[in-house]
Amino acid sequence: MSEQPARPTLALIASEAGVSQATVSKVLNGRTDVAAATRERVADLLRTHNYLAPGGRRARRSGLVDLVIGGLDSPWAVEILRGVEAECAERGVGTVVSLVRDDDARPSSWTSLTTMHDSDGVILVTSRMTSQQRQQLERAGVALVVIDPVDMPDTDLASVGATNWAGGLAATEHLISLGHRRIGVIGGPREMLCTQARIDGYRAALERAGIEFDRRLIRYGDFRHEGGFTASRELLGLEERPTSIFAGSDQQAMGAYEAARQADLQVPRDLSVVGFDDLPLCQWLSPPLTTVRQPLEEMGRLAARALFSQLDGEPLVSPRVELATELRVRLSTAPPRPAA
Amino acid sequence: MSEQPARPTLALIASEAGVSQATVSKVLNGRTDVAAATRERVADLLRTHNYLAPGGRRARRSGLVDLVIGGLDSPWAVEILRGVEAECAERGVGTVVSLVRDDDARPSSWTSLTTMHDSDGVILVTSRMTSQQRQQLERAGVALVVIDPVDMPDTDLASVGATNWAGGLAATEHLISLGHRRIGVIGGPREMLCTQARIDGYRAALERAGIEFDRRLIRYGDFRHEGGFTASRELLGLEERPTSIFAGSDQQAMGAYEAARQADLQVPRDLSVVGFDDLPLCQWLSPPLTTVRQPLEEMGRLAARALFSQLDGEPLVSPRVELATELRVRLSTAPPRPAA
Repeated sequence: MSEQPARPTLALIASEAGVSQATVSKVLNGRTDVAAATRERVADLLRTHNYLAPGGRRARRSGLVDLVIGGLDSPWAVEILRGVEAECAERGVGTVVSLVRDDDARPSSWTSLTTMHDSDGVILVTSRMTSQQRQQLERAGVALVVIDPVDMPDTDLASVGATNWAGGLAATEHLISLGHRRIGVIGGPREMLCTQARIDGYRAALERAGIEFDRRLIRYGDFRHEGGFTASRELLGLEERPTSIFAGSDQQAMGAYEAARQADLQVPRDLSVVGFDDLPLCQWLSPPLTTVRQPLEEMGRLAARALFSQLDGEPLVSPRVELATELRVRLSTAPPRPAA
Repeated sequence: MSEQPARPTLALIASEAGVSQATVSKVLNGRTDVAAATRERVADLLRTHNYLAPGGRRARRSGLVDLVIGGLDSPWAVEILRGVEAECAERGVGTVVSLVRDDDARPSSWTSLTTMHDSDGVILVTSRMTSQQRQQLERAGVALVVIDPVDMPDTDLASVGATNWAGGLAATEHLISLGHRRIGVIGGPREMLCTQARIDGYRAALERAGIEFDRRLIRYGDFRHEGGFTASRELLGLEERPTSIFAGSDQQAMGAYEAARQADLQVPRDLSVVGFDDLPLCQWLSPPLTTVRQPLEEMGRLAARALFSQLDGEPLVSPRVELATELRVRLSTAPPRPAA
């Protein structure tokens, strides 16, 4: 087998492997409808020649994608994993999962993962990334897609999210349509993009209904149960307490349930609660939770697809894609009763 | 570099790499306290010589472990993932996650995963495995550890579980100590080993307390919410209804909460509920759920450690390890009220 000093072409690889160019292309694209032996032979040749796809990405496909999940205390991370894994598995690609804790004391930053095993790309979920880390990935020729970035991503970075503003609007309009006027809202951390978008959606719904905005009804917390519980207790302790709470996550909504129980209030008779995310557990709650669905599994799938598009050298149609949120009405919302 | 026809020794690799034997050993053991360049050089030599560790395991460490999770509808899978990932990450090993659905229509069985990417070992969670699949892994030199096997594993197969019988005993004794005499119990699928162990624990507790065993109080279902809801509704519909329910999983316990709510019964005033697993969400439920804790994260860690021991050629101390379960008393259990 001769070493080609010139940049190898698809035709050359095909000819050396004794297959059609279409087959080489299939292997490049990670398609599984190629016999294992053929795939291996072609992959070996691509590696030997260090074939570069038209987009400039390296062809040494490792068959691995890294999914890096920041602050994995939320059960929704597994929903995203489901989508990424399904999409990767269909292409015969393995999903390497790394959980980055906020208080991570491990010496190696997550970008070093890709030097430990050969990875084709990284999907990053609600993590922060320094520009230095990004450059590190770029130099290594590793593709990158971000899901639900903490802050506004660079304009040329592929990112996937949900329509948070529209979700905030729909949740609040649902409560207004039931007759609620005092609606508490709990956001996630203030600096997060999605928090701002949801609360802006809440305010827009109030405005459209001609309901005066009351700053005391807005709370911020983390997205966890504790944050929802504390904020709900504060809201329920207000002199003129809200008759409903729109929580920033399903976990926060569970905190609102518990704050209601401790205040001897029944959901939804005495307090309506709306969550955000639509985790599977919403259907298991008692009462089942009305919530704004984020299509988390689909977001995972889409992120993986965007990654494979990059690897195939396809141009980025749009760097930022937002999938539609959707209100799921269950049993935690009802018309308000006049306060006793 | 000369090809050695004889089986290469640690000394040979060390000499060719220009490092000490201790360093080669560190690389073999996946330790991270070796400079990246050195590690790579040694790993290359080990690969080139196809070095076999004393235990007969191949030395071509890929730095990847496959975690295969069967029927991932349960949130507890992510707890196990947390443990496996933490243990692997500390050794610089990547965790490749595969989710195998029961109704999986994907043509490639999970054992083919390890042919798609080079994997050092497989950790299998609540999946069934045919002896053919097992042989396939063995031939490929892939180590295997099973977590919570569906049925009795082969005696020479490393497996990790929890003390299900003791958990069933503790849950039931807790209810008896509160004064309950009519205690409903919901198992998982009948054929599962853990179901049988827990229900045997339940029966043992009744017997020790001199309470007559009533077959009508035992139900089987799947481990999901729906199974718990249906079984609880049946139990609450009995002429002499139970004053408490010991559910086979936290998800089933959530189903019991909802069945109680629909029957206008308050937990724990009218019905005590005990779960099994101690998922993070138990603390978020309203009221917080009394449950039997399975140390899921630790089980994941232990499985990973057992896998690395195999890879290092260490003898298996005991093929089956069961970690202790522990009762966590929260607010869902209380003394029974006399039936109205």
